[in-house]
Order: sequence, then structure tokens, then C-alpha cells
Amino acid sequence: MDISAIRVREERLRADVEALSEFGKEPGGGMMRTALSDADLEARRWFRLRMEEAGLRVREDAAANLIGRLEPKTGPAAPCVAMGSHIDAVPQGGKFDGALGICAALEALRAIREGGIPISHALELLVFTDEEGTHYTGTFGSRAVFDLLAEGEIFKSKGPGRPCLARSLERMGKDPEKIREAVRPPSDFRAFLELHIEQGPVLDSLGIPIGVVEGIVYIDRYLLHVEGRAGHAGTTPMNLREDALVKAARLITALNRIFRSAGPGLVGTVGELSVHPGAFNIIPGKVEMSLDLRSMKKAPLQSARRKLGEAARSVGGVRIEPLLAKPGAKMDPRVMRGIELSCRERGVRWKRMASGAGHDSMTFPACGIPAGMIFVPSVGGVSHCPEELTRWEDAATGAQILADTAARIACGMLE
Amino acid sequence: MDISAIRVREERLRADVEALSEFGKEPGGGMMRTALSDADLEARRWFRLRMEEAGLRVREDAAANLIGRLEPKTGPAAPCVAMGSHIDAVPQGGKFDGALGICAALEALRAIREGGIPISHALELLVFTDEEGTHYTGTFGSRAVFDLLAEGEIFKSKGPGRPCLARSLERMGKDPEKIREAVRPPSDFRAFLELHIEQGPVLDSLGIPIGVVEGIVYIDRYLLHVEGRAGHAGTTPMNLREDALVKAARLITALNRIFRSAGPGLVGTVGELSVHPGAFNIIPGKVEMSLDLRSMKKAPLQSARRKLGEAARSVGGVRIEPLLAKPGAKMDPRVMRGIELSCRERGVRWKRMASGAGHDSMTFPACGIPAGMIFVPSVGGVSHCPEELTRWEDAATGAQILADTAARIACGMLE
Repeated sequence: MDISAIRVREERLRADVEALSEFGKEPGGGMMRTALSDADLEARRWFRLRMEEAGLRVREDAAANLIGRLEPKTGPAAPCVAMGSHIDAVPQGGKFDGALGICAALEALRAIREGGIPISHALELLVFTDEEGTHYTGTFGSRAVFDLLAEGEIFKSKGPGRPCLARSLERMGKDPEKIREAVRPPSDFRAFLELHIEQGPVLDSLGIPIGVVEGIVYIDRYLLHVEGRAGHAGTTPMNLREDALVKAARLITALNRIFRSAGPGLVGTVGELSVHPGAFNIIPGKVEMSLDLRSMKKAPLQSARRKLGEAARSVGGVRIEPLLAKPGAKMDPRVMRGIELSCRERGVRWKRMASGAGHDSMTFPACGIPAGMIFVPSVGGVSHCPEELTRWEDAATGAQILADTAARIACGMLE
Repeated sequence: MDISAIRVREERLRADVEALSEFGKEPGGGMMRTALSDADLEARRWFRLRMEEAGLRVREDAAANLIGRLEPKTGPAAPCVAMGSHIDAVPQGGKFDGALGICAALEALRAIREGGIPISHALELLVFTDEEGTHYTGTFGSRAVFDLLAEGEIFKSKGPGRPCLARSLERMGKDPEKIREAVRPPSDFRAFLELHIEQGPVLDSLGIPIGVVEGIVYIDRYLLHVEGRAGHAGTTPMNLREDALVKAARLITALNRIFRSAGPGLVGTVGELSVHPGAFNIIPGKVEMSLDLRSMKKAPLQSARRKLGEAARSVGGVRIEPLLAKPGAKMDPRVMRGIELSCRERGVRWKRMASGAGHDSMTFPACGIPAGMIFVPSVGGVSHCPEELTRWEDAATGAQILADTAARIACGMLE
């Protein structure tokens, strides 16, 4: 097998991404292409035609996932090597998150086919529904494939007046009661590969084009309730105050110190904060704030949890309400080595890293399917906004490494 | 003159305050008696009858201030010794703020009359309109008397759909164009005395029944804009962050330290804070917060202003927007000595203190009229809420000291 025969073409990839970005484009820049919106449905129709043009047999499953398949010349063969990502975007999102992953997978399939690679496994391109969790929670489509949806989940929405997935599926002519027809056995898959923008500043700041994802972080979420005593801002001397915002500030400062000294694997963020009663001339009586804590490894997370408790006790009057403890996912070491081998052979620099955000590729390891993720740089680390940008050169390098790795595995080389 | 003949009666004072608290009483406790609301107008009608019953000649001026006057037996004599406060309340306020001041003044007038004190100056009871600033800014009525309203102020309101004072005066049948008919020359007044609840915890925590107010604080207000860089909470390593909330927390902690070490005369409060964009999984890019700074003396305020600038520069990316710099007011030393002499003769403990809140009595020194304020304890320092409480015993002590002091000055003893 001559991997060097696989030639990903930057201009073709770029044309696809640019064309896709027209669906849901806003006048002032940015995208409005939330899952199963009109713009999303049009984008899917367009992309389905591109998949068919590339020689894939395409179907849509009961969860509205698009599945394009390329059989080996030797005839139908399972398990397949799948590549994919999502086509939906967050509101006011950018044109690379998700879209670059499916366009790169499409370009990889074309290049493998054009290179005449003698694959022994089928190749699949998966476009997953509602990765961003517009309807309820994220990675809907990939979880539907492996029967990982929570009971009644498709009937829930994010708020009054917002559609649930069942209604959006009905709008497409699908029967939400038949959602489990989308379920496939894990034995259908030999491996899964996803290319995605990093959405963080690490690769861009180091000038490295490829991130080899080791895993997706554990996520802990908390609400922190800080109690003080409200009072008149003019008439209460400083020494008789119990100001909830001053306590909250002390806690934020302490937590920031803890998270910074925890080492590179851990991040922690207070992203929301509200003051009660919240008036110019009233000493804050109560503060509520969010805490999002993520780590690739369990030990730093457990240590951070313990130190959070200590910091809260030291400040006093703080109640910690756990909201979420989302398990992480580990990428397959053989797939990671395959990606790195592809990089080495193309003379491309890479860096192993954690993914701080969730992705469809988390779902596969949960079912025992080897998975790998390729990150490409986000300029300035910016994402989920109109300014989201990945250089075309880096996008093409990523697609090349994706194609090479998929081809290797599809030729039986996963060790 | 036998001051000891003046006998304030606690049960009469209490009955008045209780009766007044029925106007605007909410089912769940607390008062809705904002200035010139139906409840306020009814309360004024009721209080006017009580003033007339007490032998006062009552009129209402062009600014809707109620003015009750008691001439000396020797016949009409200016300048008068005035006592007063306000009848309006903040929304969901308590029954002592303002109301106790006018009821205590009424009880003082009754007691002076019943004691047969041979006053040589007239006595007045002033019930000022909209002290709380429900329509626009506070101390409307007292400023109207001394022509201190800003141009067009009575046509301004606090927001769309909220009435301006001109409309509320029209609703009472008054012509807002004639507002300046309320203006009186400062020479009408020999002195002004106001009894008010402390609205802070100092007297209550020390167990002292009387506060002799030295002055009303200077007030500075600022908006602090803290700039950071928004980013994904999962994908941005700690060392590549510029978190606006972490910076704001550092600033709040630094300011709290500065204000605490500035000595007893100064208080500073961050009462409002908003985070942008304000999401669980986004690093704060911008924080806006309020700062309210008060001091009895100019020097600590100037020092705090300078240190605020230093702290902001040390944190970095902070813009300080000044909103207000309200001058303070000094109470008259002779009036203060008069209050203290009254305390000493009644065997009552007192403490000199600053008023951290604004009051109608600020307006008088601005016009060269000697003014004094008597504070009575607020249980727990609580005010502007249904839980506002002053013990009846303390209220009566305050009214007694008010009566004694007013009588002294009305007998020509101000030195």
C-alpha cells in the first residue's frame, strides 16, 4: 500500500467549507445553523449531494444522522472505519466547528478513492445530528447510534417555546417513536476518526499544525452559593459587614490560584455570577456563581474538588451544589500511534493534547470502539463565534493526516 | 424655663407610628407608600388631621410639603425652629424610616405645648415630599423650599412608564409651573432638627440610644469596567487566560482591604456586578461593577480615590467611570451641643457619628441654616425592608431629646 498516493486537495476542501458556510450565513457575519433548522436541513441536502458525487452510498437513519458508505473493491465488509463530525452550529457560531470535520472526511474519502488504496474495510462518513445540543444536551446523533439516549430525552427541550428533538424529527417526516431504529451494534465499527478545530489557543500559540487528542476531559459543574448579610452601603461600618461579594471575590481568587498550580491538565472557570439584591447602595447579601472544572485525569480533578471544599470552608458561608459530573473518554493508543505515524511520514509536527470540550468521538470509546481525534489550530484560540478561523493550509494538513490514518486502518493496520 | 416639664409620651408616639403604618401596609408585611401614591396621599391626610388636633396651623406648599406651625404666645415670630422628616417610603420599606421622624416631631410639639414652655420662636413641623427619590432623585421637598431643584428636574422620571413629579403634583390638583411658590428665604429658619432611624448597626451594637449626627457623608459613585478576553472554558489553558472576573475579584479584594484600613469614617461597597458574556463554559471577557464610596471627611475620600486608581492600574485593564460626586453636609456644632446637653440632663447616653445616608437635613446647612440630626437605634442595623425595627423605648427617648432640644432653641438658647 502506497500511502503517499493519497493526495488531499486544499482548494477542494476550501471550496466545500466555503460553500457550506453559505447555509445560515448571517448578514453581519457568523452562522445561524442550529440543528434541524431550515438552514441545517438545506446544508444537509447540499452535503448529501456532495457525498453521492464522491461515490458514497448515502442513507439517513432514524435519528437524522447522514451515513455515507464506500465499500472496498473486494465487496461489502464490516466492520467499517468511520470518519465524521457534525454540520450543525451554535447560534452565532463560526464556519469551522463541525463543518471542517465533515468536509475533511469527505475530502479524505475522495483522496483515498483517487489514490487507489486497496482498503479491506468499508469506509463511512458520519454526519451526526445536533452535536451542539441545541434541543437538549449535546452529541445527540452519536448517542442515538449506540442507544445511549436517556429515557424521554428526545421529548425534552431547553425551555418553553423551544422545540424538542421529537418535534424536529417529526417536522422532517420521521417518527420519533422509531428512534431506536438508528441503533447499530458496536461490532459494525473497526474505528472512528474525527477531525475538529481545537477551539483553544494551544496549537496556534505553539505553531504546531496537528493535535493528537489523548482524550476528552472529565467535566464537573457546580453552583456555589455564598451567604453574607445585606445592609445599607452608607450606614454599615466596614468592620460590621459580612459582604457576600467580598467573600465570593476571595473564593474566586483562591480557586484561580488552586487551578493554576494544579498543572497543565486542569482548567477551572467561574463564568456566571449574580449578586443579590444587587443595588448600588446595598451590601451584597448573597452571591451565586457557576464553577466549571475540567481535567484529562481523575487525580487532579479529585484534588481540585478537595481544595474547592477547603477554600469554601476557609471563606465561610459557602454551599457547594454539584450539578454535573461528566465522565471523560480516552482515545485509543493504537489509533493515536496511527495518527502520529501519518504525521511522521508527511513530515508534519504534532502534539499530544487533551480535548477540553466534548465531541461525538467521546461516544465510541464508551462502546469499546477505538477512536481518535485530530485537532487543527484555531487562530487566537477563538471559537463558537463569527471570528472562528483555521488557516486553509492547516485544514488541508489535518485532512491529509485524517485520510492517511483512515486508509492505514482500513487496510488492516491498527496495532 | 423648666425643660423637665416636657414629657414625651411613648404610648402616644407608638400609636401614631402604628396608625401611620396602616397606610400602604402590604399583606405580607412591609409598606408600599412611595411618594404621592394613593397610600401616601391618604397617610398625609390622616397626619394633617393629627397636626391640626395638636393645635398646629397647617398648610401645604406648591411642592406638596406639609407645614404645621405653632406660634409663641407672644404672637407670630420668625425665624422658626423647624422639625421634620418625610412620610413616603421606599417600595417594600419599613414603618420607621421617615415616619418615626414626623411622629416624633409631632409628639415633641405636643409635649412642648403641654409643658407650657415659654418659647420665643415659632415651631414648625415639616413633612417633606419624596425624600426617597421615587420620582427622580431624593430630598425633593426640602430642596424645593430652598430653590435647589435642578432645571427641569420635576419633569424627569426614573424610567419609561414611571411618573415625574410634575405629573404627580398635577394629579393632586397642583400646578407644577408654580413650584417656585414653595421657596422660602433661609431667614425664615432659626434651626432645623430631624430625628431619624440610624439605618445602620452602630448604636444597636453598642447599646447606645442616641446618635448625635456630625454630618452627612460625601458620596462618590463609579462604574468600574474590567476588560479580559473571553474564551472557551474547556479549551483555554490557565496560563493563556485573561479572565475578567478573576481580575474583578482581585480588585474587589484589594478595594476591601483599602476601605477597611482607611479608618472608621469611610465605607466602600461594590453592590452590583455583571459578567459578560456570562455562561457556564465561557471565560468572562468583561465585568462591570458599581462602586459606592462614602466618607464624612474629604481627606480619607481623596486618599481612597487615589488608592482606587492605584489598585485599578495594578490589576490592569480597568476603566473607572465616575458617575456622581455628592457633597456632604455638616451639622451645626451649637445644635449638636444642644442635643448633647439634653441627653446629659435626661441621663441618656449618646454617641457622635456620621450619617452614611442622605436626609432632608442636608439641605439646611447648604443654605446657612443651623441643623441637627438625632439618630435612634435600628435593631440589627436593618432598614429599607419590612424587618426595619426601632424599639419603642428608644423611639420615645429620641422624641424626648428632640423635644428638649427644640424647646431650648425656641427659647433662644443656641450658643
